[in-house]
Amino acid sequence: MENTKHVSKAVISRLPRYYRMLRRLAEEKVKRISSKDLAAQMGLTASQIRQDLSCFGGFGQQGYGYNVDKLIVELECIFGVASSQRAVLLGAGNLGRALLRNFDFSFCGVRPIAAFDTEEDLVGRTFRGIPVCALYELELICGREHPDIAVLCVPGDQVQALAARLVRCGVRGIWNFSSVSLREDDLGVPVENVHFSDSLMRLCYHMKEAGAPQE
Amino acid sequence: MENTKHVSKAVISRLPRYYRMLRRLAEEKVKRISSKDLAAQMGLTASQIRQDLSCFGGFGQQGYGYNVDKLIVELECIFGVASSQRAVLLGAGNLGRALLRNFDFSFCGVRPIAAFDTEEDLVGRTFRGIPVCALYELELICGREHPDIAVLCVPGDQVQALAARLVRCGVRGIWNFSSVSLREDDLGVPVENVHFSDSLMRLCYHMKEAGAPQE
Repeated sequence: MENTKHVSKAVISRLPRYYRMLRRLAEEKVKRISSKDLAAQMGLTASQIRQDLSCFGGFGQQGYGYNVDKLIVELECIFGVASSQRAVLLGAGNLGRALLRNFDFSFCGVRPIAAFDTEEDLVGRTFRGIPVCALYELELICGREHPDIAVLCVPGDQVQALAARLVRCGVRGIWNFSSVSLREDDLGVPVENVHFSDSLMRLCYHMKEAGAPQE
Repeated sequence: MENTKHVSKAVISRLPRYYRMLRRLAEEKVKRISSKDLAAQMGLTASQIRQDLSCFGGFGQQGYGYNVDKLIVELECIFGVASSQRAVLLGAGNLGRALLRNFDFSFCGVRPIAAFDTEEDLVGRTFRGIPVCALYELELICGREHPDIAVLCVPGDQVQALAARLVRCGVRGIWNFSSVSLREDDLGVPVENVHFSDSLMRLCYHMKEAGAPQE
């Protein structure tokens, strides 16, 4: 599946949205969809969709549309989400528990195997079958379980040191929900920083553009 | 401040990242920064930064760099984040409480005024001074307090009906954390859907690109 060359960052960042939409269509038993119908569903133009998806060697067929199941598999290959990565979650506070309880990790081919916290009241509990372990056991458990991904739900002041410790434990990617950004260059492994404020700022912008009644 | 014309969606979606970086620089008492130094800090190229910020009429001065405080104010005007919007939060479960307790709404000029839940054990409690009210009081309280933004932290199956109800209550923007996407076209007000899975998929992609040891 060597068709991911020369794909811009912008396209890559849009593809997860296509994947979500296609998974929903597949659930609704839709087998094929034209770029025009996909555009209507996603609030994009048909030509943008054709352009975005053409990067991967033209999955669509003229006059036939996209094969939904096939496109899902292609996107899963591109993103490496079909390969069942194992995750540990650091910090079982409200946000960590919200993810453990409600987030569908399997949608992205990821399986949480353990959470870690320093809070005695939390250690030993399980959330959707995932045990909360004591943080001092991190090296031991990582040495045995070889997690691929670490999900960081700890306060900002702890995140840098903890991320470095996790990389030493062999983790190959960091999903960071803390308020402090981590950098791939510092850690040597890919990082995704989740910044809620970026999304709230975009909302404020669109509200302003929509014309706020400001007296 | 009529300098926001012809700004592409892509630029708008990148600007919150600049805003975060500039706020951090201001905290560190940095007064001026060149596009080159800003690029190094953000892992971008200087020319991309000049291009992104030039959309707003060239805040930078050649050989001088950007005035950090001034650029912050300009971005706040562009995003309308300086105008102190009021927010209500729906659903005080783990995710809702995580936001109430830890998310810095004021960073975006937003002030949460009340949370709502149907859970008897939660109604009457406060988190960082924000009271949790009973959901049946929504119309009453919105009629009195006129919130601008609703933050949705409820299960996916409830979100569509609740969003419509909030728009009827006068809310002008929806920040949606549920698993079900909402559409501006359906609701008539701007929506930001937060999809954790998009971010996790991007992480998986970058891990794959970084070369996973897959046996």
